[in-house]
Amino acid sequence: MARQKTLGVVGLGAMGYGAALSALRSGLTTWGYDKRPEVCAALQQAGGQIATDLNELAQHCDAVLLLVVNAAQVEEVLFGEHGLAAQLRPGSVVLCAATVDPSLPAQWAARLAEQQIHLLDAPVSGGPVKAAAGTMTVMASGSAEAFAAAEQVLPAYAGKVYRLGDEPGIASTVKMVNQHLAGVHIAAACEAMALGIRAGANPDTLYEVITQSAGNSWMFENRVPHILAGNYTPLSSVNIFVKDLGIVLDAARKLAFPLPLAAAAHQLYLGTAAAGHGQEDDSAVIKLYAALSGIALPASKEAV
Amino acid sequence: MARQKTLGVVGLGAMGYGAALSALRSGLTTWGYDKRPEVCAALQQAGGQIATDLNELAQHCDAVLLLVVNAAQVEEVLFGEHGLAAQLRPGSVVLCAATVDPSLPAQWAARLAEQQIHLLDAPVSGGPVKAAAGTMTVMASGSAEAFAAAEQVLPAYAGKVYRLGDEPGIASTVKMVNQHLAGVHIAAACEAMALGIRAGANPDTLYEVITQSAGNSWMFENRVPHILAGNYTPLSSVNIFVKDLGIVLDAARKLAFPLPLAAAAHQLYLGTAAAGHGQEDDSAVIKLYAALSGIALPASKEAV
Repeated sequence: MARQKTLGVVGLGAMGYGAALSALRSGLTTWGYDKRPEVCAALQQAGGQIATDLNELAQHCDAVLLLVVNAAQVEEVLFGEHGLAAQLRPGSVVLCAATVDPSLPAQWAARLAEQQIHLLDAPVSGGPVKAAAGTMTVMASGSAEAFAAAEQVLPAYAGKVYRLGDEPGIASTVKMVNQHLAGVHIAAACEAMALGIRAGANPDTLYEVITQSAGNSWMFENRVPHILAGNYTPLSSVNIFVKDLGIVLDAARKLAFPLPLAAAAHQLYLGTAAAGHGQEDDSAVIKLYAALSGIALPASKEAV
Repeated sequence: MARQKTLGVVGLGAMGYGAALSALRSGLTTWGYDKRPEVCAALQQAGGQIATDLNELAQHCDAVLLLVVNAAQVEEVLFGEHGLAAQLRPGSVVLCAATVDPSLPAQWAARLAEQQIHLLDAPVSGGPVKAAAGTMTVMASGSAEAFAAAEQVLPAYAGKVYRLGDEPGIASTVKMVNQHLAGVHIAAACEAMALGIRAGANPDTLYEVITQSAGNSWMFENRVPHILAGNYTPLSSVNIFVKDLGIVLDAARKLAFPLPLAAAAHQLYLGTAAAGHGQEDDSAVIKLYAALSGIALPASKEAV
């Protein structure tokens, strides 16, 4: 049997923190790195090791899961000053889980290969709840060597792994298509609920009927309860879709491919952020319609 | 026990024909009326009675289900020359199942009330498959008298009835919200699948992963298999959503309510119809993206 891997997790936001906890529960020695001391302290209390810098992380780990926010952060972590590319041992594997332009993972894989480091293009789906439960869906593509090096750590945080091909970038393409749909569906849920409220329908009734009808979507079912409860505490924020639909639109522009629906949805997230709701739950897109039309949204159930 | 009602079905398209067959199977005496002789002959062969005109239908029936295409046809059938309003017996009920502007059913109900005829605002969801199985979802609103008069016939063609309120129009509002989402989701499914194909993903793999991820929708799951099979035989056509999103946009305009996503989706259906695909399955919206970008869509599995 292969020697047990030691996992490093870079980026301890809701997704990374959940993945690190799941890995600990599964029995993997797990190191975390994040610039925010409070999330490091929390992981330490849960039994994790904390690296004070990437150098320390690289000394201890032979598989590193990147759950940072965007491509710029991936490049900083891998190729910046004191980046992992120069410090990880040959044979190590980097699992890149950030949502990024699908043309980038192949470039990163080529640069890491010069140091005999493998890259698995491995974006995730499922949100903070599944991350905490260790049941995220991982979309993965990369070389046979990258899969072999990641074999032991993937089940530690993933409920389901799709092996999508040998080329880094395929998995990010599938993730991009998923984010396109997820982003359009949340905005559509907000537009449709706002229309129904404006036309006099009861919002709870709308939810009950639509979730049993052909208009349903995973996002409608998941996000509209936030609207009905008047609770915009961010599980995933408006700004995440400002970013993710931005990635989708930029990647499509490089391909000279038109996306009128995704572009319209992106404007709605931007408008919601411009109105001051960028940090709220992404279902706050309905507040843009409320601001435009004066409809009354369901009040917070916690308000007295 | 109440005397058994006799049901009339006006409009024997896929939905109306399915509803009439289901009613026959449930044991109701069922009359059909349609201007197309071939659908009348089919219903007759299945045991139904055929009315040669609305007058004959009105003589025999005390509950009439309208499954015509639009509001203009509803008005013709109810209030045109030899229309049902002047011919149905007092106490009869009209179940209006067409997708219409939600402001209309209340006006129709008021006019029918002058003849002591009840109107149930009763749009349906579920498509031809559920219509044939007698398991359509009916969204219904109207007076207690209208519900009482319809009580016996609704279970003959509906699998589920939502009783949404006392005012005709509430059900059509809920249906409008459902059609908004259904229309946007089909167009989004086509846009996202086309993007994925352009970016090099395998379309079958995209379907497998997305249907298990947060990007899924009822429509994605239902329509994308038509694209994968290269089969655009219309179950529900592009032109239906040219019409239904048109109704949604017109109704919202009356309310001075903006719908940027529905408007963008409507343009995609119009573009697809303009390109000559209006009579094809609504998943043919992907052909618009193919025409713009030159991507190859999956070929028909039946082609040799």
